[in-house]
Amino acid sequence: MNFDSMCPKFEVAIQIIGKKWTGMIIRVLLGGPKRFKDIKKQMPGVSDRMLTERMKELEQLQIVKRIVYAETPVRIEYTLTKKGSSLKEVIEAIQRWSDVNV
Amino acid sequence: MNFDSMCPKFEVAIQIIGKKWTGMIIRVLLGGPKRFKDIKKQMPGVSDRMLTERMKELEQLQIVKRIVYAETPVRIEYTLTKKGSSLKEVIEAIQRWSDVNV
Repeated sequence: MNFDSMCPKFEVAIQIIGKKWTGMIIRVLLGGPKRFKDIKKQMPGVSDRMLTERMKELEQLQIVKRIVYAETPVRIEYTLTKKGSSLKEVIEAIQRWSDVNV
Repeated sequence: MNFDSMCPKFEVAIQIIGKKWTGMIIRVLLGGPKRFKDIKKQMPGVSDRMLTERMKELEQLQIVKRIVYAETPVRIEYTLTKKGSSLKEVIEAIQRWSDVNV
């Protein structure tokens, strides 16, 4: 890896992952598909409105997929796409660093 | 790794790393110790004031060390501490993800 020049892709990626709540949402969904309320349960302090906004952004970025099950009542779950799941390595690296350094 | 409960250390770590400009500063310093102006050169769009603020925060967090060389004129360089260098794994994981997905 060349550290002597900035990579525009890196800038984009860190702006996505580093946005408030986003890393936490991805971490939660690495545990498997979840409903909105179950995502929220693991994220103390996030408001419904903020979490809704972030989920929409992550859908647009094709990191998260929203799945509607045609049951009664309708069940909606969020899951990581392939692009989203591939952030596992990043999330685990952050977790390892934090275990030692925070 | 347990994805089924949020880890407070993870929250702290991602708030540090994800803060605007911070990931980029660490990435630049992984290339070796640098002067302020040489860090800035690799970060288009950052102001002197913002970069100064971030460097101070990173010093307080003991991620970055400020070294003053008693030369004439005085030379000041910034380098990663051991704690800072250990973020290499995180930065590289983000770079790899962005190479494929951005």
